[in-house]
Amino acid sequence: MKGYEHLAQWVSISDSPADRENHSSDISGHSPHKPDIIAYPESTAQIARLLTWANTEKIPVTPWGAGTSAEGNPIPVRGGICLSLERMHRILKLSIEDRLAVVQPGVKYRELNRQLAGTGWFFAVAVGGDATIGGMIANNAAGPKAVKYGATKAHVLGLEVVLADGRVIRTGGRSAKQSCGYNLTQLFVGSEGTLGVITEAIVRLTPEPTFEEALVAQFPSVAHALHCASTLSGLDAGAIEFLDRAYMGFLGEEPADTLFCEFHSIGDGAEAERRCWAAGAIAVRRATEAVERARLWAARLRAYTASAEANPGARLLTTDTAVPVGKLQEMVSFLQRELSRRNLTGYLLGHAGDGNVHVILPWLNEAQRQAVNGFSLAAVEKSLSLGGTASGEHGVGIGKRHYLKGEHGANAVGLMKEIKSLLDPARILNPGKLLPD
Amino acid sequence: MKGYEHLAQWVSISDSPADRENHSSDISGHSPHKPDIIAYPESTAQIARLLTWANTEKIPVTPWGAGTSAEGNPIPVRGGICLSLERMHRILKLSIEDRLAVVQPGVKYRELNRQLAGTGWFFAVAVGGDATIGGMIANNAAGPKAVKYGATKAHVLGLEVVLADGRVIRTGGRSAKQSCGYNLTQLFVGSEGTLGVITEAIVRLTPEPTFEEALVAQFPSVAHALHCASTLSGLDAGAIEFLDRAYMGFLGEEPADTLFCEFHSIGDGAEAERRCWAAGAIAVRRATEAVERARLWAARLRAYTASAEANPGARLLTTDTAVPVGKLQEMVSFLQRELSRRNLTGYLLGHAGDGNVHVILPWLNEAQRQAVNGFSLAAVEKSLSLGGTASGEHGVGIGKRHYLKGEHGANAVGLMKEIKSLLDPARILNPGKLLPD
Repeated sequence: MKGYEHLAQWVSISDSPADRENHSSDISGHSPHKPDIIAYPESTAQIARLLTWANTEKIPVTPWGAGTSAEGNPIPVRGGICLSLERMHRILKLSIEDRLAVVQPGVKYRELNRQLAGTGWFFAVAVGGDATIGGMIANNAAGPKAVKYGATKAHVLGLEVVLADGRVIRTGGRSAKQSCGYNLTQLFVGSEGTLGVITEAIVRLTPEPTFEEALVAQFPSVAHALHCASTLSGLDAGAIEFLDRAYMGFLGEEPADTLFCEFHSIGDGAEAERRCWAAGAIAVRRATEAVERARLWAARLRAYTASAEANPGARLLTTDTAVPVGKLQEMVSFLQRELSRRNLTGYLLGHAGDGNVHVILPWLNEAQRQAVNGFSLAAVEKSLSLGGTASGEHGVGIGKRHYLKGEHGANAVGLMKEIKSLLDPARILNPGKLLPD
Repeated sequence: MKGYEHLAQWVSISDSPADRENHSSDISGHSPHKPDIIAYPESTAQIARLLTWANTEKIPVTPWGAGTSAEGNPIPVRGGICLSLERMHRILKLSIEDRLAVVQPGVKYRELNRQLAGTGWFFAVAVGGDATIGGMIANNAAGPKAVKYGATKAHVLGLEVVLADGRVIRTGGRSAKQSCGYNLTQLFVGSEGTLGVITEAIVRLTPEPTFEEALVAQFPSVAHALHCASTLSGLDAGAIEFLDRAYMGFLGEEPADTLFCEFHSIGDGAEAERRCWAAGAIAVRRATEAVERARLWAARLRAYTASAEANPGARLLTTDTAVPVGKLQEMVSFLQRELSRRNLTGYLLGHAGDGNVHVILPWLNEAQRQAVNGFSLAAVEKSLSLGGTASGEHGVGIGKRHYLKGEHGANAVGLMKEIKSLLDPARILNPGKLLPD
């Protein structure tokens, strides 16, 4: 803890081997790296003091939510301080009347929704992991519900942020509508902790659907399934997810290209079923009762876990391309062809309503790592050629930094670097992430 | 045109008195100011060349869409060049398949929607004026549909922007989902032409509602009407608008506090009617047929025009506060009390579903100008005290610059100024707007 001891006078810190180990990796396959210490601040003032000092001393500070991110976003690759937000876990305000919650960054979104149970309102972003709201904002996380409600960025009304030099700013506000000055809120959403530390967030609450119907439909081909998905627009769909026949077979299900949907308006499930049959479905099942809905969706719900469990000891690379939705079929066909051509195991899972598709690729050794990285690069290049992005919802993190110029061009990346230099001239905040060197 | 003649070799310019007059004011009450010349570029390259020169020569450049903004946003208060985007009016791509349009900034949103007629898709922001999409993006315009679809910022997937020094950048992309690097798109949305000139936009298309039902309900008090509005959440409302009894009376209608709503799901109109009666409505009318819907909404549709026409020769100040929706009733009561206490004529119109309310105040002379400005300041101070904003949808422009610090604090405004200095160090872009001096 050499050099850090004096911090202990006003903030909890730890350099225990277990703590350092626990803050060295996320769910991505990126190599772990331990921080020198973990700091557990309990207030904005402590974070401001810590950053002021670290900025002067040029010590790396990497914010940490729950470690559930998928691109190495919170791995402290340059050591220094891991800034855990776990003790900033208070819900400061719940206002149904104003349709907002004010939360500290360490609040888990599931906890917020537990507190909201019975009110008819919820925080409408759901991701796979038990993520913190601060982490979801920093990474602009999305998930299956985004097809209806949008990504996290659509749910943030305002932030409190501590800048690298310790300045505390407030962005946005409590009003649902705001058009008053530069949108600093969205500068920090998705900035992955590289521009400031989010210490408080005002998030929007959404009315819970009063009706939910699940629909699962099997198709004779990817083309049929994704064409069908594109015909479901205009219906009140809460999710339009896709698993290919290989993934379904791996999960022990009927090996068919399958859509998993959810509808929130009475009558839309029946209309969707008609469209599924018209699009060539070979089987369609619907359910409105909760247990039955979960049963229909079971394969989708356990997909990620099952692919991890089937490969003990392996690391997983997860691609995250998103293309204009009309290009999804071409993208998925390309990914399947490349998996086959490269003789790779990969599990293909799509947020079909948004054009976002993941391929989960296990790897065990250096040769396999290079093989899956080669596949990832090919996927990104194809996505960009179709007008898509390298990252739909996981962020840039470590591994996608070198795709940024290809996607945005040198001028835009140049401007991103200028903004980084403006906000964090000593480059202490989450170094080695998001921007290429 | 002294000093500008050489521009004519490669871009259309004009200094005719009529042209200068036509580009000296918007619909706000702010004093007109003429540009030295108007430039009519036809390409991004011409804009880049013009900005490169103006930046070197430190000549003000103020972008101009259609002049329909409400806060003086495009008035060239420091003279120089008015950069009209009217010749950049091409729709470059319409893709129903990908649910997007690529447009030049001078495309009017109504023209885009005319081109989309019959496709089942539309650009889902509607403002009162015949605005350009570039202008709507620059001001983050909203309007009645925002309660369902969000403001313009929710509809922009990507931009091409020319920076003050002539650099051309591309932000975002064509994918509905994006989480790949800093959100430069939202840095320019709502920046009112002070950070760059938008030369192309990728905008989201939205499925048209397949069903529309209008509902107009009268209430015995503001409190009843706005309480009712708050109970309509969870229904598929395309608009929830409010006119107070004074405005209704002025319009020659039954002088009752009135909600104007639109619903897009079958059954929601009937459910809304039940909620209106439960909330104490004294009259409720509904209609699904187009002509009848327009008739029900007639008072709301002609409200702004009628208040302008009733005050020939007057200028109009329009307040634009937006508060957390649970605070709307307190805000409206305050505004009504202040109008009465100050003995002012003011027309009160609310986007009740969003907490956004306008008071339109005519003024004819300096004494009246001071009186309406005093009211505006009181409205903003009240809004901020309720956690609201000085501007829900019109932007900052000229008159609200001095409210920025009160709303966002000195540190946040300081960061906005640093960003301005980074992007426009010579301060040529729309000087005198958005930021306080």
